[in-house]
Amino acid sequence: MGSCEPATSDAPVGVALVGAGYWGRNVARNLLDSAATELLWVCDVDEAAAGRLVGRRSEVRTTSELDKMLADDEVEAVAIVTPPGTHVDVGLAALRAGKHVLMEKPLATRTADGERLVATADELGRVLMCDHTFCYTPHVRRIRELMHAGELGDLQYIDSTRVNLGLVQSEIDVLWDLAPHDLSIMDFILPPGVVPVQVSAHGADPIKVGQWCLAHLTMPLSNGALAHVHVNWLSPTKIRQMVIAGSSRMVVWNDLLPGRRLTIFDSGIDVTPVEGDERTRRMVGYRLGDSVTPAIPESEALSAVVSEFAAAIRTGRPPLTDGHAGLRLLRTLEAASMSRRADGALVRLELDDAA
Amino acid sequence: MGSCEPATSDAPVGVALVGAGYWGRNVARNLLDSAATELLWVCDVDEAAAGRLVGRRSEVRTTSELDKMLADDEVEAVAIVTPPGTHVDVGLAALRAGKHVLMEKPLATRTADGERLVATADELGRVLMCDHTFCYTPHVRRIRELMHAGELGDLQYIDSTRVNLGLVQSEIDVLWDLAPHDLSIMDFILPPGVVPVQVSAHGADPIKVGQWCLAHLTMPLSNGALAHVHVNWLSPTKIRQMVIAGSSRMVVWNDLLPGRRLTIFDSGIDVTPVEGDERTRRMVGYRLGDSVTPAIPESEALSAVVSEFAAAIRTGRPPLTDGHAGLRLLRTLEAASMSRRADGALVRLELDDAA
Amino acid sequence: MGSCEPATSDAPVGVALVGAGYWGRNVARNLLDSAATELLWVCDVDEAAAGRLVGRRSEVRTTSELDKMLADDEVEAVAIVTPPGTHVDVGLAALRAGKHVLMEKPLATRTADGERLVATADELGRVLMCDHTFCYTPHVRRIRELMHAGELGDLQYIDSTRVNLGLVQSEIDVLWDLAPHDLSIMDFILPPGVVPVQVSAHGADPIKVGQWCLAHLTMPLSNGALAHVHVNWLSPTKIRQMVIAGSSRMVVWNDLLPGRRLTIFDSGIDVTPVEGDERTRRMVGYRLGDSVTPAIPESEALSAVVSEFAAAIRTGRPPLTDGHAGLRLLRTLEAASMSRRADGALVRLELDDAA
Amino acid sequence: MGSCEPATSDAPVGVALVGAGYWGRNVARNLLDSAATELLWVCDVDEAAAGRLVGRRSEVRTTSELDKMLADDEVEAVAIVTPPGTHVDVGLAALRAGKHVLMEKPLATRTADGERLVATADELGRVLMCDHTFCYTPHVRRIRELMHAGELGDLQYIDSTRVNLGLVQSEIDVLWDLAPHDLSIMDFILPPGVVPVQVSAHGADPIKVGQWCLAHLTMPLSNGALAHVHVNWLSPTKIRQMVIAGSSRMVVWNDLLPGRRLTIFDSGIDVTPVEGDERTRRMVGYRLGDSVTPAIPESEALSAVVSEFAAAIRTGRPPLTDGHAGLRLLRTLEAASMSRRADGALVRLELDDAA
Repeated sequence: MGSCEPATSDAPVGVALVGAGYWGRNVARNLLDSAATELLWVCDVDEAAAGRLVGRRSEVRTTSELDKMLADDEVEAVAIVTPPGTHVDVGLAALRAGKHVLMEKPLATRTADGERLVATADELGRVLMCDHTFCYTPHVRRIRELMHAGELGDLQYIDSTRVNLGLVQSEIDVLWDLAPHDLSIMDFILPPGVVPVQVSAHGADPIKVGQWCLAHLTMPLSNGALAHVHVNWLSPTKIRQMVIAGSSRMVVWNDLLPGRRLTIFDSGIDVTPVEGDERTRRMVGYRLGDSVTPAIPESEALSAVVSEFAAAIRTGRPPLTDGHAGLRLLRTLEAASMSRRADGALVRLELDDAA
Repeated sequence: MGSCEPATSDAPVGVALVGAGYWGRNVARNLLDSAATELLWVCDVDEAAAGRLVGRRSEVRTTSELDKMLADDEVEAVAIVTPPGTHVDVGLAALRAGKHVLMEKPLATRTADGERLVATADELGRVLMCDHTFCYTPHVRRIRELMHAGELGDLQYIDSTRVNLGLVQSEIDVLWDLAPHDLSIMDFILPPGVVPVQVSAHGADPIKVGQWCLAHLTMPLSNGALAHVHVNWLSPTKIRQMVIAGSSRMVVWNDLLPGRRLTIFDSGIDVTPVEGDERTRRMVGYRLGDSVTPAIPESEALSAVVSEFAAAIRTGRPPLTDGHAGLRLLRTLEAASMSRRADGALVRLELDDAA
Repeated sequence: MGSCEPATSDAPVGVALVGAGYWGRNVARNLLDSAATELLWVCDVDEAAAGRLVGRRSEVRTTSELDKMLADDEVEAVAIVTPPGTHVDVGLAALRAGKHVLMEKPLATRTADGERLVATADELGRVLMCDHTFCYTPHVRRIRELMHAGELGDLQYIDSTRVNLGLVQSEIDVLWDLAPHDLSIMDFILPPGVVPVQVSAHGADPIKVGQWCLAHLTMPLSNGALAHVHVNWLSPTKIRQMVIAGSSRMVVWNDLLPGRRLTIFDSGIDVTPVEGDERTRRMVGYRLGDSVTPAIPESEALSAVVSEFAAAIRTGRPPLTDGHAGLRLLRTLEAASMSRRADGALVRLELDDAA
Repeated sequence: MGSCEPATSDAPVGVALVGAGYWGRNVARNLLDSAATELLWVCDVDEAAAGRLVGRRSEVRTTSELDKMLADDEVEAVAIVTPPGTHVDVGLAALRAGKHVLMEKPLATRTADGERLVATADELGRVLMCDHTFCYTPHVRRIRELMHAGELGDLQYIDSTRVNLGLVQSEIDVLWDLAPHDLSIMDFILPPGVVPVQVSAHGADPIKVGQWCLAHLTMPLSNGALAHVHVNWLSPTKIRQMVIAGSSRMVVWNDLLPGRRLTIFDSGIDVTPVEGDERTRRMVGYRLGDSVTPAIPESEALSAVVSEFAAAIRTGRPPLTDGHAGLRLLRTLEAASMSRRADGALVRLELDDAA
């Protein structure tokens, strides 16, 4: 198939978009604006929606027939922004047609489906990238750099809050709807060797819709630190905040403060072992230092997602957030669902792929 | 004993303070400023500390001997602001000397000790009041009024955050140190008939001091709502916030915003049952209404605590936060400690006194 | 000329855009998205810039030749987003070619030029609308409604702050660059019968670029109130705030708080005349009432600008911000410049057109 | 007179307080708490108010008779916290009785009276200190250090805002009520050699109380920078903010953010002269750097005022804010009042004492 031959590295990647909803609109705009991609098709079961997305006076083609679009050899890659339940079928069809795939998170609704996608992409030598968008913001990248460079010291805890008056979903609960953001960010920033080892999930459905509308995830990490995630569809105030506390420095990322989203506190608790004493006696003291808000130019994460996708396709290297990252997310979500059925009991996490 | 006779109702109550630490200083100031009380003694094992508290040019007496102060018939009541481990002994001594007691929270360090205090006060006909200070702020009173008047609709969730870079304690963990505030407030504001039924506690000690330094409490309530408390000694930023969400209105209490601590949101999720349909199908929609910050004059809670204590003594009625409220708090803290030992399993709460 | 005939009222207005800079890009997007307009051309002296604006796969035509575009009979209207110094020439050319004109603010760089534009539009029966964008935000509209309905009582003062680290301009000073926003908003919201009567301008050029980089305008109003505007290119923090204080209520509009930009304070100073006393003796007291943040859905102002422009063209009625509003703005800016030359002396304003 | 002899340097200074109002209460508390002072008397025309201030069980004496207190040889110094109109008479009486004087700001209501106080103190060798409280906060001290050390570069502008719903005064206008804070701070922090050279005052009395209730001061400085002060009794929101912008760094001091009142921005406008070009052509560009919130422990300014007063008395050196600082403030306020009578015209400032 012509579309399987590596194109010359400087030609834009021909891309088709599947899914003309809210997020699809953003993906389309970035595919159009990037010099590395060329948007050729918008496909949606509701072709009128696809038409509204491309707008008047556009030459981008629209269709409601996936196969018709997949048959186009100019299409090298497909961006899939459809409901999670459809990811596995659309994704497999695209991969089998020889296309590279950028998949909206979560990769699938069951780990088994995610594994089929990863295996198929591996087998056919296609790029399978997960759109873990926040990992492409300059702020999350900065947090990862600080963490990996040891600037924060030993990780002590992570606390993530993602609450607002949100769209109550009928198909999935608030964990599957919102926590993929927090969990994919944590997966991205954790220092080498530190992994979540268990997860406990508590939640409630006070408005009786048959789904958790608010939930708390608690995750002990392998180094003794604790991660906590609060997701909530029923909050009158919007909060998007993650605290990453280390023994040397602490970072607060408030995503609702444009221009000053990240603050690094040179504050903490100093613990000094008392010599000649039994293990638990330590001198404990405060350290209240300066705080710094680094100048980080704002940029659209989705633009970096599109660049990364195109670069992975052109160079053949795996993208920063590949299918395996998507699988780790799926496994964590499934473990959280198990904990829900076990009244919040801690469920062991086994994130790595079986050899 | 003369001190047991009811005094005439308009004479100030003669009070002795036990404990000259940080909070004792605040209690002393309010006992001095109130027309309903007269501060007669400050007692501390370190008499120099008591001396520094009363300051120069004061006629308030100081001592390090509890018995000497208790022998003074002018002393009708004792305010106890000593470390929790000493509450039961100091409290019993005061009650047995015929004094009324205002006890700093928690009432004791074990439920059994709290029960002895309550029983002794009942038996001797003395007032035993718990200093659940926040219940005497105008803001918490307003929340209680809104809740009891049904202004918030059905309670959906409560989310309380009390974090900052705090004094790491060697004797007690962060739950026993900070959560008494959140739990006593919840006990005070919950609408009639709604009680917490279980508690799960997760936490961590990332700095290896032998105590939890951060913890999350999750408490299902009897009406299907969920309460959550996050307390943390290691947070670079200070947060004092409680969200109380109901089906009609939601309240956010941010105690770090003087003059505008309370905001009432006329927003929420509207759920409309779909007629003729099975139980789980409902129309769900947003309601984004105005938010109101009521004008609530600031006032010092401790001043209202002192007034309530004096009024309970003079009128013989139980104080708003009596020994039984203190017992409910103790039982919740003990259940949380049990959950900690059970790796976060939900522990059943039995808050009411056995007949 | 065919383009002068009234089109049927439901056909979209064919529009050409002149100026492919930052703001032109926003105007273009709204012309494309609106059902009431059809973007036909983008014209810029730098045709490559026009090309980048329309993007790939677009059918919108581009040109660097104004006349070529004006010769197109399908073009009924022209949106002009060029540097202010060019407004008069481009505007007159468009009007004389029979086109309606939407002009970026300020209307011109001299009152005399503005008057020529207004007179030409009147003479030729064309719509001349000024893009006073902020007047089309739902928040400014709400302020105007409150003011006109008497909800705020008697106006006491207006205080507007528009400061940030801004692009220092070489052609115009900070007054002409930023104050048009504040002044056009004031012109729009002032209650009937209240007008600014004088203006004093103070400023400085501490970085020696030959232009004021920060300035303060003080404007006594006809009812005894005072308006003040602070504009500044050198501020490390960005502020976009206007306070409108009346005798009954006060409004704070903070444009950097999405979702809660407007707050209405039911607070103020109550002045009660003391009976039988000389004129100046009054009882003065505080009133600290609730504050309300009304739920105002966010919407893009420029979309309403485009709708208003199209509606004015199709119905023949004057737009909400017509050429006369543009002239009042120009006259105020010119008076401020006079005050600058007179070391801040108050300069009388004569805003109304001479008969 | 015994009280005129220098006491041994480590004995506390015996102080009498005149004026038992709101601020007097704070001064009294600090005089009591300081080891360097001993509060002996509280004097007020309303002796009952003095009694309420000292409280029950105190040995501090009270009186309504100034002379009686001044006759007490144990009284070495007098803190005067009475209405400004009485400052000159009370102050002269105290100085003539051989007492050192700490005077609440403003020093007097007329420059001539202030000069009499300064001359009398000089003549009699007594300390005359002005209570410019804010100069004793650690934050203003830090700003002064930064400025004097050249850390901010060349001063570009100062912008001070001090507005809230305030007590409307019948005797003095808002300028004399609030601007003394801003002006005394500026006097304290300006770098050596930079002085205000003119002042223009605009204001309004929209509630017709016969006094300006809001005012704007604009003050060109000797180095080309501009200072502006906005004071307002009618503002629904409280703002206490000063921006000090230099060519290298900019400082924002927001006094309503405990724990993080000061932020230093490493941002600004960079101006590079273009070689070989005429004088006004320069390259102008942004510099968006990090911002830092230094860790500055909170401390009560009034405590430092009391220490400074006692130290000046014991060592014989002039206090940091002496009578001459008070005179510069008075001269600025009088010039602002002149500008008010001249409709806001710039009035020349002559701040230095005539030889």
